[in-house]
Amino acid sequence: MAENEKDDERLKRAQKNTKELREYLYRQQPADIAEIVQQMDDREDQKRLIKILEPEDAALVLNELEDSELAAEILTELPENRAIDIVSEMSSDDAADLIFELDEDDREAILDLFEEEDANEVQRLMNYPPDTAGGLMTTEYVAVPAHVTAAAAIEMIREQAPDAETIYYLYVIDSKGHLVGVLSLRELIVAKPLTNISEIMWRDVRYVNVNDDQEDVAKIVSKYNFLAIPVVDDENILRGIVTVDDVIDVIHDEAAEDFLRMAGTSLAEEDEDSAIGKFSTAVRSRLPWLLITIMGGLCSGQVLSHYESQWSQVIALSFFVPLVIGMGGNVGTQSSTVTVRGIATGSISGKRVIFTVLREASIGISLGVTVGSLVACAAYLWQGSITIGIIIGMALVCNMLTAATLGTLVPIVLKKLKIDPAVASAPFISTTSDIVGLLIYANLAIKILGL
Amino acid sequence: MAENEKDDERLKRAQKNTKELREYLYRQQPADIAEIVQQMDDREDQKRLIKILEPEDAALVLNELEDSELAAEILTELPENRAIDIVSEMSSDDAADLIFELDEDDREAILDLFEEEDANEVQRLMNYPPDTAGGLMTTEYVAVPAHVTAAAAIEMIREQAPDAETIYYLYVIDSKGHLVGVLSLRELIVAKPLTNISEIMWRDVRYVNVNDDQEDVAKIVSKYNFLAIPVVDDENILRGIVTVDDVIDVIHDEAAEDFLRMAGTSLAEEDEDSAIGKFSTAVRSRLPWLLITIMGGLCSGQVLSHYESQWSQVIALSFFVPLVIGMGGNVGTQSSTVTVRGIATGSISGKRVIFTVLREASIGISLGVTVGSLVACAAYLWQGSITIGIIIGMALVCNMLTAATLGTLVPIVLKKLKIDPAVASAPFISTTSDIVGLLIYANLAIKILGL
Repeated sequence: MAENEKDDERLKRAQKNTKELREYLYRQQPADIAEIVQQMDDREDQKRLIKILEPEDAALVLNELEDSELAAEILTELPENRAIDIVSEMSSDDAADLIFELDEDDREAILDLFEEEDANEVQRLMNYPPDTAGGLMTTEYVAVPAHVTAAAAIEMIREQAPDAETIYYLYVIDSKGHLVGVLSLRELIVAKPLTNISEIMWRDVRYVNVNDDQEDVAKIVSKYNFLAIPVVDDENILRGIVTVDDVIDVIHDEAAEDFLRMAGTSLAEEDEDSAIGKFSTAVRSRLPWLLITIMGGLCSGQVLSHYESQWSQVIALSFFVPLVIGMGGNVGTQSSTVTVRGIATGSISGKRVIFTVLREASIGISLGVTVGSLVACAAYLWQGSITIGIIIGMALVCNMLTAATLGTLVPIVLKKLKIDPAVASAPFISTTSDIVGLLIYANLAIKILGL
Repeated sequence: MAENEKDDERLKRAQKNTKELREYLYRQQPADIAEIVQQMDDREDQKRLIKILEPEDAALVLNELEDSELAAEILTELPENRAIDIVSEMSSDDAADLIFELDEDDREAILDLFEEEDANEVQRLMNYPPDTAGGLMTTEYVAVPAHVTAAAAIEMIREQAPDAETIYYLYVIDSKGHLVGVLSLRELIVAKPLTNISEIMWRDVRYVNVNDDQEDVAKIVSKYNFLAIPVVDDENILRGIVTVDDVIDVIHDEAAEDFLRMAGTSLAEEDEDSAIGKFSTAVRSRLPWLLITIMGGLCSGQVLSHYESQWSQVIALSFFVPLVIGMGGNVGTQSSTVTVRGIATGSISGKRVIFTVLREASIGISLGVTVGSLVACAAYLWQGSITIGIIIGMALVCNMLTAATLGTLVPIVLKKLKIDPAVASAPFISTTSDIVGLLIYANLAIKILGL
């Protein structure tokens, strides 16, 4: 914190003097400079800062801006030759991502800044859906033919390094561009200079297809601790690479998606950005879950009204309705959350499935007995009736067993039906548990009290 | 899938023949071999497979095993010289992590396998809490003095590469071990061979302290797209590095923690592993949230019983209690989830706070009006009373406004009080919304019906 304040002061002092500002910025990371740009209120200040940077750094900073429209606006308002210098330093995937967010006119304006070859490249990348390996990949990688020597390969890296996104993996291709091997810079460095690449490369290359889902790409890179993974098309021709920093972004996004979806907040449309995002999207993404709750609430009401005549004889029973409803819903949500998570991470599969169901059911009973006894005592103390205590206690045990089993089974069955188990989210499970719980409670009461 | 089956067959054939098995395994990634080991039922098979591997690969495979106890058991049951070969290939942080999970006896047995120097190193690493930079770091990095040339540095990398966790960053230290600079292998490779390292290194090194929280380490590495970050002690002496693959694990773990905690499933104790984990931990971690729900349920019951005399005059009102309760809880949870997420990612801070509260409140009203009108119609159709329709409709609008505001404010206030906002999880918010919602409903009904 103290360091930040010192930095702020330094920045303020430096802003008065271009040379000092340049020196200050030189020592900052692109992500930090992007934050400074975002916090500036005046467009002229923002442009001035970007102009001071080397084109290479300016390209990185613009890509780090969270607000792509801001980046595009700054870029299009800069003097044209300056803007051309900057876009020529952008990696093709970053450029495609930036342009993808813009409307038609802005797209044209930016694409005009690129050389024709680069513009075509960027447009090709924009054709891949953004959540696929193709949408994620960069085309700036180092590729060498299999027949060159280690020394020659190092020389090729030296030449290609300024443009390549990562030089830590060397991809080996045949004359038609097919991916035939891979070699890490580490292995290359320790290899004897005159060894042929084909002798030291790994032939069993892990790769992904351009159409693979970004979540699968992230899983492979995480699992194998890769720094990058090659992307090939259906003919096995190397088209690009996905680097680990983009994978980290995917992991963040997917976690946010799961997180919000489980709470019934969203169907992927409302992601973390839309905490500052579109109002109508937020309303639209939350409404479906509330409609489920309405259906559930009306069904519960139907249950209550069905037993009305018996029920009204012992009015105290209705005081426990909120408790019965809340309890089943909570336990069901807990079980379904653990299960959805377990399915996502792969820890629930094969023979683990039955084990998980049994485990969650036993947890449900244990929690039910604990909670049920507590509530039975509370009910007795409050209403002075042992019978009511017993009814509510027993109802809770049955309820929580049912809710836990339901919360575990539903995501597993959905998964088997190839439906995303995360749709078995809080609102769905808790609504179902509510209705079932209420039915159990009402019937138990009627049986025991002989109504 | 098809490829997996083919692989399985190949594995089965290969198991009959050691040479074939070795060739098969040679082409697999450590994470894949670890999966094979985990799926084997027979300890002898597991040991046989590990023995076939080169010690270096065996070390990687044992570290990839999710079950550290299994890894330790295999290791201690191997012939001693074999086990020594394997542990000597383990990186110190992986070894520390593995040993950390074991009980006292097993720890001794494994530590005895290390050479004294390595054993001391491992024990030093074990002293750092596992969720700090120190607990996460490895001590196998490449460090060079500032005064050597680029060519000499490349030669030093060649020598240190087999042991180093990553050779893609070169850390520059002074004679006392203070971190004074950093250089990427990429920059080193393109530098002129006779340049002094001190001329080309970056002096403004981003680093973390050994005591920093792993979540902060992950944030920095994600933000700046680093492949590794140096870890220093309070004297600025370089102690280790945290590599990006460990950061990815942290991101996964933290996402799982947030995910489970928001559902009131857990207080960090029950993580994804315990989908197959300890029963008692699961029960203990879920119970507190249920106790909150009990309190809430009893309070709601109290509200119902308080208004009993007025209430019983229009029995139909009670049929909507489940709906009123469910609705407020859901909207509150949605708002609090978005807010908790926004706080975690930093998108809600400073002037954004008021904006967020106003935004969620407006979403609450919009959803309330939509849902309220729908339910009002449904109530009229069901009960044939316009008045009841109006009451329930109005109650839902007020309810959802209150719940959305509450769901947004509570995490923000908790954050200000330096309490983890994620404890404002589903059970807490939905319980509070339930009680407030019921109070609004009851009072509206009494006012409008003049009870």
